[in-house]
Amino acid sequence: MDVIVPFTARDPKSRLAPVLSVAERREFAFEMLRDVVTAIEAAGHEPELLVPRPLDVTASPLETETVSETTERAGGAAEKPLADRSTTVDDRPLTPAVNGVLSRLADGDAAAVAIVMADLALATPTALHRLFGAGGDVAIAPGRGGGTNALVVRDPGFAVDYHGTSYRDHRRAAADAALSVGVVDSMRLATDVDEPGDLVEVLLHTDGRSAAWLRDAGFEVDDSESRVGVRRADE
Amino acid sequence: MDVIVPFTARDPKSRLAPVLSVAERREFAFEMLRDVVTAIEAAGHEPELLVPRPLDVTASPLETETVSETTERAGGAAEKPLADRSTTVDDRPLTPAVNGVLSRLADGDAAAVAIVMADLALATPTALHRLFGAGGDVAIAPGRGGGTNALVVRDPGFAVDYHGTSYRDHRRAAADAALSVGVVDSMRLATDVDEPGDLVEVLLHTDGRSAAWLRDAGFEVDDSESRVGVRRADE
Repeated sequence: MDVIVPFTARDPKSRLAPVLSVAERREFAFEMLRDVVTAIEAAGHEPELLVPRPLDVTASPLETETVSETTERAGGAAEKPLADRSTTVDDRPLTPAVNGVLSRLADGDAAAVAIVMADLALATPTALHRLFGAGGDVAIAPGRGGGTNALVVRDPGFAVDYHGTSYRDHRRAAADAALSVGVVDSMRLATDVDEPGDLVEVLLHTDGRSAAWLRDAGFEVDDSESRVGVRRADE
Repeated sequence: MDVIVPFTARDPKSRLAPVLSVAERREFAFEMLRDVVTAIEAAGHEPELLVPRPLDVTASPLETETVSETTERAGGAAEKPLADRSTTVDDRPLTPAVNGVLSRLADGDAAAVAIVMADLALATPTALHRLFGAGGDVAIAPGRGGGTNALVVRDPGFAVDYHGTSYRDHRRAAADAALSVGVVDSMRLATDVDEPGDLVEVLLHTDGRSAAWLRDAGFEVDDSESRVGVRRADE
C-alpha cells in the first residue's frame, strides 16, 4: 500500500492565526507532519510526502533540534529527517494532486493508495491499522464537519474532491461508481487540528512532538470554564 | 452489564438555544435519548434511564406520533415507549447520581456498569459493542473537549466526577486506584451533541429519529462556506 501525506508549508494552519504567529503555525504544522509520518511508519508503512514544491526543511527551525529530542524520546532510534523521506512534488491544488497519485491504481503501479492528512496529530499506529485494514473499495475516516481526513482507495474508478462536504461527496461518488465503502469510526482520525479549539485534543490525547511543541509554547488545558479549552500562559 | 443512560428533561441542551427554542430543544433531546436507547438495545443490552424525577413522557409532544414513525422505519417492530423503560430516579446532580448507580458494584448487584450519555445521537450498536467489549477495569470513550461520553466500570474502587476535564480526571483517578483503563477510539461516541456546530454531524452520520427531527425542523447540511455547518431553511 502506498501511503501518501499531502503537505504544504505555505501559510499552513491559517485558522490558528488567532493564537499562533505565522512562524509558529509553520513550526507546529511541521511537528504535526512529523507525528503523522512517525505513526504511519510505526504502523508498518513507508510514508510518502506529497508537496507542491520540494520541502525546504532548512526553513523549519526545529529540524536539527527536534531530531535529538526525538532520539531521546524514542529511546535511541534516530528519526529519519523529513528531507530524506520519499517525496512526490506536484504543484497543483490538493484535489488534482491527490488524483494524480491515485492514477497509480489504473497504471497498475499500486494495489491500494492511502491518503492521510498531515494535521492528524492524534493518529496512532492502532488507529492507522484500522484504516489500512478496513474493508471496501474505498475506506474513509471522516473528519469533524464532513471532511475526509484519511482514506484508502483500492479501485481506479474513484477520484477525490476535497471541496465542501467531501465525506458525503466521496460516499456518493463511490456509490455512483458501484464501489463498496468502509467507514472507520475513529475519534483520533476524525480530529484534524485546524482551529484553536482543536489544540486541547492534542494536549489531552497525545504525547508526541505536536503536544510537546504546544506545551513549550505555553499552552495548557484550561478547564476553568464549562467547556474545556486551552489557555496560553503569559510568556 | 447494567447500562445506564442519565437524562434530564429540564432545560436540556441549553447551548443549542441560538438555533432551537426551549420546546424544540426538549423535543430534540428526547429524540436523541430514544436513538441512544434504541442503539443500546440493538447492541444486546437493556437500557436503564437515570432521571432526577419520574419522566413525564406526556410532556414530550412526539411520544405518540414518533412511535408510529418508528414502527414504519424499523419495518414493523414497535418501539418500547420511554415510559415503559426501566428507570432509576435520583434527584441529585449527575456525578453523585451516577456514583449511586456505581455502588451496585460494591454491593455485588452488578459485575459491570456502563454509563452512556443521552446526547450521543451518533451511537450505533457497533460503536457500543466496542465500548462494552473494551478491556480495563474502567473503559472510557472520551468526548470532544475532554469529556467522558461513555464508560464501563468493572471495579467498585472507581467513582466518577463529571466536572471539568473529566476524561483526564477519570484516567488519573483510575491510575491512583491502580486500575487499568481501556480507551475507546470512536468518533461516534466522541460526538456529544451540545452546540449548533454539532448538528451537522447528526445529519451526516445518522439516519435515526434525531436526524429526522432536524430535517423536519428545516435543518440541512450547509457547505457553502469553507467549514461545513448547518443551515435552517426559512419556515
